[in-house]
Amino acid sequence: MKLLIVGGVAGGASAATRARRMSEEAQIILFERGPDVSFANCGLPYHIGNTIADRNKLLVTTPAKLRARFNLDVRTQSSVEAIDRARKTIRVRELATGREYEESYDKLILAPGAAPLKPPLPGIDLPGIHTLRNLQDMDHIKAIVDQGAKQAIVIGAGFIGLEMVENLVHRGVQTTVVELQDQLLPPLDREMTTPIAQELKAKGVTLLLSDSAESFTAVDGGVRVQLKSGKELTAPLVIMGIGVRPENKLAVEAGLDVGPRGGIRVNDQLQTNDPDIYAVGDAIEVQDVVSHQPTQVPLAGPANRQGRLAADHIFGRPVKFRGTQGTAIVGCFGKVAALTGASEKTLRRSGQPFRMVYVHPAQHAGYYPGAQGMAIKLLFEPEQGKILGAQAVGGEGVDKRIDVIAVAIQAGLTVFDLEEVELCYSPQFGSAKDPVNMVGFVAANWLRGDHPQIDVAALYAMPEEQRPLLLDVRTPEEFAAGKFPGAINIPVDDLRSRLSELPRDREIAAYCQVGQRGYIATRILQQAGFQVKNVSGGYKTYMLWHP
Amino acid sequence: MKLLIVGGVAGGASAATRARRMSEEAQIILFERGPDVSFANCGLPYHIGNTIADRNKLLVTTPAKLRARFNLDVRTQSSVEAIDRARKTIRVRELATGREYEESYDKLILAPGAAPLKPPLPGIDLPGIHTLRNLQDMDHIKAIVDQGAKQAIVIGAGFIGLEMVENLVHRGVQTTVVELQDQLLPPLDREMTTPIAQELKAKGVTLLLSDSAESFTAVDGGVRVQLKSGKELTAPLVIMGIGVRPENKLAVEAGLDVGPRGGIRVNDQLQTNDPDIYAVGDAIEVQDVVSHQPTQVPLAGPANRQGRLAADHIFGRPVKFRGTQGTAIVGCFGKVAALTGASEKTLRRSGQPFRMVYVHPAQHAGYYPGAQGMAIKLLFEPEQGKILGAQAVGGEGVDKRIDVIAVAIQAGLTVFDLEEVELCYSPQFGSAKDPVNMVGFVAANWLRGDHPQIDVAALYAMPEEQRPLLLDVRTPEEFAAGKFPGAINIPVDDLRSRLSELPRDREIAAYCQVGQRGYIATRILQQAGFQVKNVSGGYKTYMLWHP
Repeated sequence: MKLLIVGGVAGGASAATRARRMSEEAQIILFERGPDVSFANCGLPYHIGNTIADRNKLLVTTPAKLRARFNLDVRTQSSVEAIDRARKTIRVRELATGREYEESYDKLILAPGAAPLKPPLPGIDLPGIHTLRNLQDMDHIKAIVDQGAKQAIVIGAGFIGLEMVENLVHRGVQTTVVELQDQLLPPLDREMTTPIAQELKAKGVTLLLSDSAESFTAVDGGVRVQLKSGKELTAPLVIMGIGVRPENKLAVEAGLDVGPRGGIRVNDQLQTNDPDIYAVGDAIEVQDVVSHQPTQVPLAGPANRQGRLAADHIFGRPVKFRGTQGTAIVGCFGKVAALTGASEKTLRRSGQPFRMVYVHPAQHAGYYPGAQGMAIKLLFEPEQGKILGAQAVGGEGVDKRIDVIAVAIQAGLTVFDLEEVELCYSPQFGSAKDPVNMVGFVAANWLRGDHPQIDVAALYAMPEEQRPLLLDVRTPEEFAAGKFPGAINIPVDDLRSRLSELPRDREIAAYCQVGQRGYIATRILQQAGFQVKNVSGGYKTYMLWHP
Repeated sequence: MKLLIVGGVAGGASAATRARRMSEEAQIILFERGPDVSFANCGLPYHIGNTIADRNKLLVTTPAKLRARFNLDVRTQSSVEAIDRARKTIRVRELATGREYEESYDKLILAPGAAPLKPPLPGIDLPGIHTLRNLQDMDHIKAIVDQGAKQAIVIGAGFIGLEMVENLVHRGVQTTVVELQDQLLPPLDREMTTPIAQELKAKGVTLLLSDSAESFTAVDGGVRVQLKSGKELTAPLVIMGIGVRPENKLAVEAGLDVGPRGGIRVNDQLQTNDPDIYAVGDAIEVQDVVSHQPTQVPLAGPANRQGRLAADHIFGRPVKFRGTQGTAIVGCFGKVAALTGASEKTLRRSGQPFRMVYVHPAQHAGYYPGAQGMAIKLLFEPEQGKILGAQAVGGEGVDKRIDVIAVAIQAGLTVFDLEEVELCYSPQFGSAKDPVNMVGFVAANWLRGDHPQIDVAALYAMPEEQRPLLLDVRTPEEFAAGKFPGAINIPVDDLRSRLSELPRDREIAAYCQVGQRGYIATRILQQAGFQVKNVSGGYKTYMLWHP
């Protein structure tokens, strides 16, 4: 068996080492265009920020180590230029010498990754405009910061963009973020990004949402960016972080199928339409496990997994890649946002029916010092309650709850199962009713008919005359400090004795601070014959929409 | 509906509030022997340690609040003395006045909890000997510490015992722990408690394992404890934390069934053998979801859940309590130990077949600052790989991994599913191959036949002459710094060229530091025709057994 692998970072390196573990006999050659293999690309922003001070820590392994330990033939600075599928060969160019040669294969794995998008805007190739894909990109950006750059413009407020912002601010760089959409972190639903936006503003970052770069001009002091809004920004450092596109040129030129967004198409065994050619990692199209739709998920975890599975299949193992659910997380100035499975926007786009609830628990027992709030949004099927997706934003403990729900989605669990999950509880780690139980209770009570709910967005999407009576069941002090416009106030503890003040011919939307007292009010009113719903997540959800 | 509830802490208070949400019409009376309802009993040690400075934080709610919000008739300092099942009444004694009265019921929920064990040893009732169950116990202990006690003896090294130790040491109290078993934290397997024991010793705590108190004597300066070993200890403060027994007197006297360890027997709807009487919380016997055996699990999470379900069933909802899997956690001086599902010892006791693996990953990417090691032990079925249990010990991130595996157990997932879990990854939160994936890989590779393993304990349980050749595949430097006795050293990177040095007629046990290089060595040797196994978790697992 002669196995060639194109690309030596996450998916390619995983495939190569797994292949060797499957076969000591195979000839395995790993081609990498860059000078490094298997570097920690998720760590790049943190070296720029000096959080990871030692650059060498980013080198997960080296060609020499891969040779010694895995008997791999590692060829860096070697660009694979073409595939001849009929002859089963590839053409390789040594970047240092320009020499070209052919190499034959029995099986070929493509792991070329994805390249940062650089739209064809005027001035896009100016030297002050950077993308961040590899150690060399990192070195260039870091050098500019080290030389004392005082301003930066980050275009694109996705995961990497925000990590760059955090690290630039750490370095004392005044940073402006420009994002085309009307929110940070486009994979999340907009309201769930509010706490991150607030934190960025608190750290002095300028956010320009619903705006985009139109052209770039070299000026004294760096690059001037003209925005669609007419604004102009100038900085010595501009970072483009608006997404990536699959490196599919080699595949396309070889006649391999790609999807509409450019991802190389593979089957459940990671084979392209040529069964001797596999593809893995950021370059491929995968199936979303919730929507069953094709998607592209440029994340390290799935890339590693795909590399492993492709190698297994090549060496005769039965494998089936299950698709991905897009679990992802970002930390930014101590705030954390994470998601798994479908978002509200992807569900609306696909027309899949769903319900959603919000909870605002603390990460551990409120009576133990350091309790911090988080917001969790859970999306689930409206009939059986199968979990479709979740998002959380807060601080400590966000990663844990999304991970727990990620496994629940993988297992096909329902909101009724979340009521039952038995998680670690002692006061510094959780609560007797963990946030995951809480969100399960709230969702399951709704499906059982005990807790009808409405969400803030739906409430305000209604014409004002059709809107339910807004009933604030918090204390007068809380009500005075901030309320839903137009709400009346009857504290939950007084509600039983003041039912006569409420209309029986109009729907009532009860709410409190986080949803708990609103739920009790809903139970009281529902049993007394009122038409009532609880506003899911209460005033805290309102504040996500109207900060 | 007239519903009486005996016991007003976790299970009882949950049942009462849930019952009210189910029915505004029901008459609900909550009887509590103590002065407080629904206090945070898991927080008691932390108030003694001044971590939770404000005692009021431990009062989750008050009788007045329960009355106002839930229209509950809460009767504290009211001891329920007897149940007359034929007449469906209970007899109540008001502790303040001594007045007794009867109260009739349609349904009755028993939530009396469990009492700390106080074995009938000479001197057990001396005033210096304390247990910790409620706020009054806490106040007594705290007063002694506040008055300047300089030594304490904690008898029993379970979860609450260790939390007491941590908090006493915080307060500057020189603490000795006495534990009957040969390990701390008896619910865990012994080797998994080693890092906690080491941390306790590092903090100056004296550990006396395999020892127990035989008698207590009042002496100047407090209590002298005579141990079985002959040792004598003296301190002004002795805390008994050797476990709890169900408060079953009321149930037994009413002819309700209890199990061999005293837990009140209930069906899946939490009904005792009298269908009008339910029982919930620490007082009941439950089914272990892994072993399907009856057990007693005095934990707050299941108690709350049972209270909810009992109330639901009383108001006509279809419910089924699924049993418990005993997920639990303890933090002690920054070290954390947690478990879920079956332990090795419970599996051995029941004779259920299993395999187990160890991994020693960091909680997040090693290249990001602050990476700390943890040890994870996973137990699973030897055929299909269904997960039976897991334990972890380390620092940050232990709770998350046990929670993730807890859900996997609940869902009936296998080690093959753990390979696939898609968890949050960015460098400060996890790894592209999360510890949960890692333990899945190690277990699944074994079941697929690619990674035969042996554990340290099994290795040393063999007669020495039958033991495999121990092959250390780490570097000579690591080998010199500490090794398995009798091992030879061939670094993994040299192994392919030194195969001739190894015997073909004797089994080989390869090992490295954590198992990864040992796995590669195993693959090399297995493919070269050697009989080889990898020592699961390598030298780090050895050090758990031989610190």
